[in-house]
Amino acid sequence: MDGPDAKGLILHVASVLFSNGCNIIRQDEYVSPSGQFFMRTEFVDNGESTSPEKILSELREKVPNKDITFRINPKRKKDVVILATKEHHCLSDLLTRYYFGELEANILAVVSNYDSLMPFVSKFGIPFHFVSHENRTREEHETLMLQVIGQYKPEFLVLAKYMRVLSPGFVEQYPDRIINIHHSFLPAFIGANPYRQAYERGVKIIGATAHFVNNNLDEGPIIAQDIKEVDHRYTAVDMSREGKDVEKMVLTKALKLVLNDRVFIFGNRTIIL
Amino acid sequence: MDGPDAKGLILHVASVLFSNGCNIIRQDEYVSPSGQFFMRTEFVDNGESTSPEKILSELREKVPNKDITFRINPKRKKDVVILATKEHHCLSDLLTRYYFGELEANILAVVSNYDSLMPFVSKFGIPFHFVSHENRTREEHETLMLQVIGQYKPEFLVLAKYMRVLSPGFVEQYPDRIINIHHSFLPAFIGANPYRQAYERGVKIIGATAHFVNNNLDEGPIIAQDIKEVDHRYTAVDMSREGKDVEKMVLTKALKLVLNDRVFIFGNRTIIL
Amino acid sequence: MDGPDAKGLILHVASVLFSNGCNIIRQDEYVSPSGQFFMRTEFVDNGESTSPEKILSELREKVPNKDITFRINPKRKKDVVILATKEHHCLSDLLTRYYFGELEANILAVVSNYDSLMPFVSKFGIPFHFVSHENRTREEHETLMLQVIGQYKPEFLVLAKYMRVLSPGFVEQYPDRIINIHHSFLPAFIGANPYRQAYERGVKIIGATAHFVNNNLDEGPIIAQDIKEVDHRYTAVDMSREGKDVEKMVLTKALKLVLNDRVFIFGNRTIIL
Amino acid sequence: MDGPDAKGLILHVASVLFSNGCNIIRQDEYVSPSGQFFMRTEFVDNGESTSPEKILSELREKVPNKDITFRINPKRKKDVVILATKEHHCLSDLLTRYYFGELEANILAVVSNYDSLMPFVSKFGIPFHFVSHENRTREEHETLMLQVIGQYKPEFLVLAKYMRVLSPGFVEQYPDRIINIHHSFLPAFIGANPYRQAYERGVKIIGATAHFVNNNLDEGPIIAQDIKEVDHRYTAVDMSREGKDVEKMVLTKALKLVLNDRVFIFGNRTIIL
Repeated sequence: MDGPDAKGLILHVASVLFSNGCNIIRQDEYVSPSGQFFMRTEFVDNGESTSPEKILSELREKVPNKDITFRINPKRKKDVVILATKEHHCLSDLLTRYYFGELEANILAVVSNYDSLMPFVSKFGIPFHFVSHENRTREEHETLMLQVIGQYKPEFLVLAKYMRVLSPGFVEQYPDRIINIHHSFLPAFIGANPYRQAYERGVKIIGATAHFVNNNLDEGPIIAQDIKEVDHRYTAVDMSREGKDVEKMVLTKALKLVLNDRVFIFGNRTIIL
Repeated sequence: MDGPDAKGLILHVASVLFSNGCNIIRQDEYVSPSGQFFMRTEFVDNGESTSPEKILSELREKVPNKDITFRINPKRKKDVVILATKEHHCLSDLLTRYYFGELEANILAVVSNYDSLMPFVSKFGIPFHFVSHENRTREEHETLMLQVIGQYKPEFLVLAKYMRVLSPGFVEQYPDRIINIHHSFLPAFIGANPYRQAYERGVKIIGATAHFVNNNLDEGPIIAQDIKEVDHRYTAVDMSREGKDVEKMVLTKALKLVLNDRVFIFGNRTIIL
Repeated sequence: MDGPDAKGLILHVASVLFSNGCNIIRQDEYVSPSGQFFMRTEFVDNGESTSPEKILSELREKVPNKDITFRINPKRKKDVVILATKEHHCLSDLLTRYYFGELEANILAVVSNYDSLMPFVSKFGIPFHFVSHENRTREEHETLMLQVIGQYKPEFLVLAKYMRVLSPGFVEQYPDRIINIHHSFLPAFIGANPYRQAYERGVKIIGATAHFVNNNLDEGPIIAQDIKEVDHRYTAVDMSREGKDVEKMVLTKALKLVLNDRVFIFGNRTIIL
Repeated sequence: MDGPDAKGLILHVASVLFSNGCNIIRQDEYVSPSGQFFMRTEFVDNGESTSPEKILSELREKVPNKDITFRINPKRKKDVVILATKEHHCLSDLLTRYYFGELEANILAVVSNYDSLMPFVSKFGIPFHFVSHENRTREEHETLMLQVIGQYKPEFLVLAKYMRVLSPGFVEQYPDRIINIHHSFLPAFIGANPYRQAYERGVKIIGATAHFVNNNLDEGPIIAQDIKEVDHRYTAVDMSREGKDVEKMVLTKALKLVLNDRVFIFGNRTIIL
């Protein structure tokens, strides 16, 4: 749930869940300095008559303020399509975990603007779609991409080092549902060639950032970041190679948080409960 | 509060606080795999008639199970005495923060079995007691120490690199109220000369551990730990010197958690909410 | 090279390489407190008449002390056999990197005491040998393992979560050539179920250790370690699941160091140049 | 030494030191992708006739290329003046270490544009100069500052959270000799209020950067960086408070590297050997 803070919100939720025989497993809340209230309550029902609809309706009754939103997400695998280009490291980490049943996701397909990852993806029995951007305008390419993706009706798109900028028109088809990995410690080194930029600047730490994609390139809400120490011996190529390990761990971490319904978006920030 | 888990605990607390006009600022709970419930609720009262006693009494009424303990800790500075030996790094970090008003503590005195830190401590206008262990049995020395410490009636003792083992008789005077910093990543390298042991073993990471002191040396509940990477170039002396930075940061971090009433002890573990 | 330190060693190496038209790319040396000298010199030859044998012979001439050992390792892929049990995370990280040409290794085969990883390994076209330990004595099982492994004449064995203790007789077949990943921050939690031990002890940090295997279980020279912060919410199962990420990164890091001839063994420690 | 790479440089240095009876303790070199050679050689002389001048002259003879620079820095404490404003954390860490003899520096004075740190500094018997910027133009203030600083003839200026931008005219008085701590992970959040910027951007990691000051604000060569994880609960004020720990450790680390002659400046980057 989220919405403007008010007295008694925790009490109302506890009360409705209690009267429906539900047991709270874990609960976290957060109130922003501006007074926005966020709460994530993990509970198990009593296995009987209770339904999410009934609980939601009782919550609605106790908390009539329409600015406060309640959602009940039963635990289930989310449908995901992955976009990639040529680099494998994020993709292979996700596919391997998926293959061994470690992700709360159904990976429905991989779509790429190159065909080089096709042999690898096909090992896992996942459909691979090659949608070349060559000889196509950006608009034509995105239209084709959206068609291919659309047939899977994914809940989330994961950009596993998909190296093309998405237009606002594309992004608004999947609002707050596209997760990207950027190979820098955002907001440092926005845009192209961040490792080259990092090398030129002589930083002693490189990083990676997983974030939701919105209409401003590299500026959506950040979900997870991590870093790695480097020194003067790292060329831009070394940084790029070693940074891949950070990228794949950060993207996987962020995706897991999203798949487990732990991420709230609040303006340009994420609240992770 | 902590005790055996039961349905409705969160509801009862929320209900009592609400009816007393209190507003919950932050709330965290944890249920152990064995079914022990812990909750820390940070709230502000309405500035009027409500008293901790009244709230406690109403909670007691709603939750009659005596195995469940409620405590209300008003925000205030805790009384602390620091024990040290010869090394200054933990002590100076604490004194400096204290001097600038950054600790929720009154540092009442420093007691040491050497006098070498006296000039430094005296700069801060804090009483320094030199209680030498020379020519005294352990028992005699501890008796003296307890006398000196006792006059300050401290709520917590902080062993800021106090390099003598405390006897069970000493420890039981301050149960769950003595915080020690051990210069290893416990439980690795228990006992004397942990950096020497770390060097001999050829580890690539060293660490420090802040923990409550119980009767088994280096085995009390761990509050905080941190590490630092090393390589083959580090001698035991280098590790000792560089490890000091980790030690002081870990001890300060642990002490802050304790001073802010965020640490629950549960058997040999800490729950930090 | 390594051996007892002496004046002029750097000079002699520089001099021989220079006179053979070789260019030093990178050079690191280390002298232990006990006076042992280690140096790793990375150089390119002039593409002509120079041979490793000629260089070694000239070095030998300038440095007649037989306790000083010179080795020249041309850059090439090393032959590796991986041993696994049921867990895939270390194995899949290595196989994926191998498949994409990122390891300086030829992975010749995977040998396991269970067959559950066979379908995954077979995707990569790598021979998988299932050598069950059931209904076999340790000795019988190891004899079979050694036969299967031996046909590949591997230079290194990688224990990618191979969950059986190797006997001294096995280990001495591959002295200083077996690399293991242990799922704790050694020397903490030696032996079985380290995450269970870590949970019981209430540590705030877990870790993993890659090390050479010698005759004492979990006590060989450490190559790499890394850690991950945990809190009271982590059960032993959570630690085990989350610790896998650390394990796979540490094993891969250690293996890369070994494959790039960067690791010297010195008693029970490693020197990494 | 540094300069354009050439064959035999390591050999020449080794040869001259050897013939002068010096023993190399540690040696590190680096060649940039652009072909610039850097080497730091730590050696002990034989305690007799050898002088730095003689060694330099012999090196000069063997390596006549004037673009290659040799420097011999005998181990000694460097003269330092610290600039501060109101925050104490970096200053107090440095003064405490200095007091206990842990820095290779003589801290000659502290100069501040506020007088609030005077009582603390005076405890350590170090001259404190209060040079207010109020009712003065930037130029007037800097002229006064330079006068006060100049009387100490410091080799290095340390900006321990000195919160005023230095003009190019000031900086050029101490070229490559002013070390600043910036409270962000540069180049993210250049300029004022970086923690506020970090909060607004919703980052999950904050950091600090120690760097040499050149004429472009926050753009000099980076010496050291470190980070700390944060989450949505951190306000800008929390970040500022918690970030102080990172700032003080990073500044101290960077200063130690500089004091130990381990930092080379190469364009806008540092080489640390």
